Amino acid sequence: MSLLKLSDIGIVGLGVMGENLALNLHRNGFTVSGYDLEQPKRDSFAQRTGAAAPRSLQELVAGLGAPRVLLLMVPAGTAVDDVLAGLRPLQAAGDIVIDGGNTRFTDTQRRMAELADTGILYVGAGVSGGEEGALRGPAIMPGGDARAWPRIKPILQAISARTEDGQPCCDWIGPGASGHYVKMVHNGIEYADMQMICEAYFVMQELLGMQAREMGGVFAEWNRGELSSYLIGITADILAHQDPETGKPLVDLIVDTAEQKGTGKWASQAALDLGVTAPTIADAVFARTVSAVRAERAVAAEVLSGPQARFAGDRDAFVEKIRRALLAAKVCAYAQGFQLLAAADREYGWDLPFGTIAGLWRAGCIIRARLLEDIRGAYARAPQLANLLVDAQFARMMADSHQALRDVVATAAQHGVAVPAFMSALSYYDSYRSRRLPANLLQAQRDYFGAHTYQRLDRAGKFHTKWTAG
Amino acid sequence: MSLLKLSDIGIVGLGVMGENLALNLHRNGFTVSGYDLEQPKRDSFAQRTGAAAPRSLQELVAGLGAPRVLLLMVPAGTAVDDVLAGLRPLQAAGDIVIDGGNTRFTDTQRRMAELADTGILYVGAGVSGGEEGALRGPAIMPGGDARAWPRIKPILQAISARTEDGQPCCDWIGPGASGHYVKMVHNGIEYADMQMICEAYFVMQELLGMQAREMGGVFAEWNRGELSSYLIGITADILAHQDPETGKPLVDLIVDTAEQKGTGKWASQAALDLGVTAPTIADAVFARTVSAVRAERAVAAEVLSGPQARFAGDRDAFVEKIRRALLAAKVCAYAQGFQLLAAADREYGWDLPFGTIAGLWRAGCIIRARLLEDIRGAYARAPQLANLLVDAQFARMMADSHQALRDVVATAAQHGVAVPAFMSALSYYDSYRSRRLPANLLQAQRDYFGAHTYQRLDRAGKFHTKWTAG
Repeated sequence: MSLLKLSDIGIVGLGVMGENLALNLHRNGFTVSGYDLEQPKRDSFAQRTGAAAPRSLQELVAGLGAPRVLLLMVPAGTAVDDVLAGLRPLQAAGDIVIDGGNTRFTDTQRRMAELADTGILYVGAGVSGGEEGALRGPAIMPGGDARAWPRIKPILQAISARTEDGQPCCDWIGPGASGHYVKMVHNGIEYADMQMICEAYFVMQELLGMQAREMGGVFAEWNRGELSSYLIGITADILAHQDPETGKPLVDLIVDTAEQKGTGKWASQAALDLGVTAPTIADAVFARTVSAVRAERAVAAEVLSGPQARFAGDRDAFVEKIRRALLAAKVCAYAQGFQLLAAADREYGWDLPFGTIAGLWRAGCIIRARLLEDIRGAYARAPQLANLLVDAQFARMMADSHQALRDVVATAAQHGVAVPAFMSALSYYDSYRSRRLPANLLQAQRDYFGAHTYQRLDRAGKFHTKWTAG
Repeated sequence: MSLLKLSDIGIVGLGVMGENLALNLHRNGFTVSGYDLEQPKRDSFAQRTGAAAPRSLQELVAGLGAPRVLLLMVPAGTAVDDVLAGLRPLQAAGDIVIDGGNTRFTDTQRRMAELADTGILYVGAGVSGGEEGALRGPAIMPGGDARAWPRIKPILQAISARTEDGQPCCDWIGPGASGHYVKMVHNGIEYADMQMICEAYFVMQELLGMQAREMGGVFAEWNRGELSSYLIGITADILAHQDPETGKPLVDLIVDTAEQKGTGKWASQAALDLGVTAPTIADAVFARTVSAVRAERAVAAEVLSGPQARFAGDRDAFVEKIRRALLAAKVCAYAQGFQLLAAADREYGWDLPFGTIAGLWRAGCIIRARLLEDIRGAYARAPQLANLLVDAQFARMMADSHQALRDVVATAAQHGVAVPAFMSALSYYDSYRSRRLPANLLQAQRDYFGAHTYQRLDRAGKFHTKWTAG
């Protein structure tokens, strides 16, 4: 080993993501070595990347130039703890560990606390873009010990995606677990985005009777306009894809049971914990859970009645309404995601760069979309924006599109087509722009049965009433 | 002390709930003593109840007959741990501790594990009914160490509410933290129930221009029919209540910012953890959080545009639609709550008695309602009912009312009135009765960007596709 050039970075965990990141690093001129517990993965890695694949963590670490940079690409959970424990005796103060997995931010907080006295510089980095992104350039959201940044910045920015204006889709997010938190919110938005696209598809199919190929054309057209995004683009591809054996659209042959890995759930739970209104993210998770009880739904479909209404409007005009509804709903979901970031920022004191975050989501990651340039602009104009919706540009966008969202929601409701994310996006919009909500009655109820007191509009203080004496 | 009669039960924590439970116990012939850290509370307790209020935990415990029964009515959280630590050296094997607070079920699980080797019989008991319920008869949901039940059953059933047919609103729930879990779900349903009532009120007010007094009359009338419930009743009282100073309806003078203590949030998070579709409970929590950003809403109301539509239909007919919509939405919310119980039952192996639980919620607690007798009946007919909605009676109820829910949701959407819980109840109904949901597209998206694979309708196995080659 001593004759070999020392590697710039060592990767632990040689699944597809780790392997593709290695190829990406290699392409960008970095020397990489990699380690995995499983020998076949080490062999495949060595063969595919031409990089060193030593047989132990010890050899891996010994082959790195100081300060040593290790990138963990192992499944989130106890595997990370196992690797960290294995690395611990091999590391020295100043060494850098980057956890590039989809780790729950609370785990990153715990691991940072555990390593606090070691001098090891810990970084939790969200990496988005899937396999393809890992290979060609993902969006990377690193946060943690800022002393690591000067050393890893040239590496991570070199392998990250670049926006059209040449910016790397990787920048320092902040201290603590902020990198993984931001990735969690990214995924929460991704859940909502995917669900809303599914609802647009569902309405076209159930209400307008459109076929997959035709809908594929609609999404392809949408992808040339203000909805332009990675997820719209792949939806067009998917709907156009024909099963070679049956000749049918492949999407029609897929079981309608959505799976999940937990990041959308975490985002929803974090929103609940911080008191952030994020119903569209939560409803996207619930849409997956109800899809999962497929056998129950088949029974319920026999037992439960729906409306008799048949769509009788102008089909093309309604497709355009669905497009605008999707845009409006998408803005509401992004607003919820950024409200969650803002609340976490206040809670944990991270000083998050909202505009930078929107900026680095413009390419590489799953939610990359034209809209993100507008969001970046909004936070550049007003770094402390109270809510994306009240930015002048987004308020105009909503003014142009909320009626379409109302029409789609009302029509879907009358025709029995479930559109939970569209509905909660509209609820969010209408609640947020309501000077007065019915929570006055709710506070009165709480005071009635629990003496929880209430506040008055016309005077200061807390009040309790014996309501029955009216 | 030695000359005094030993007490049947000792209460720790002499707030309103503890004090009222003591009065209730006393009225039912039990000898009570009570302790609180604060002397004024001890003095007030002794004066109001005539019971012993010793100055230390040690004296309290010494004054109890064996096996000693202690009821903790202290605020949920670290206060419970503090009391348990203080009690520990004073207790012997066979002693019973009942935590009657709104404790998060995971805390109860932890405390049970900590006390596992002590021989102390730990019971986590949900108590619902507010101050009034504590005094006159609450619903009590005890779970934990079943060896405690024979000793505490006569006490707890004596002080609990009774249904019209004379059943005590207290029965053994199951092992572990099941008592507190069931109470958490009760509160989740309560959140949804309150929010849906608020939305019914909000639609009448914003859409139909009705005044508080008139709406109070509507709720009073509803309370005589199938919606009859405690919460509808107190809403009628509240809306009829006139502020003595201004002569205005008091509800109109209350700040529309809802507060919360966390149980609805816990229920939502538990649903997410167990993969249970409970959007209406979560939306009720989010309705409170958006009400809390009142200053932001005032700004947003200036900036964000709404629809121009004015209601032009038949007012009385629409009030009847709201009533039916509320009934339909309520059934959906209860269905979600019972699905959460069923999932917890599977997860923790509690063997929960669903019919008994519905039965004991019929009186005493905040969500007591005529509907609960029907729910009890449904689970009596089919203890393993897949979902409340597919019970024949509830399916009929939904058949009679889902169109009204559609009309209210569609009209509210078109008029800019936020009804998040109504909407998610409808989404829940329409999703659950959908044989086919758009999750097939979602699975295709996940396979496209993450190679997560999918299943096919026409053959077994897991598949991955290179979607761009179509």
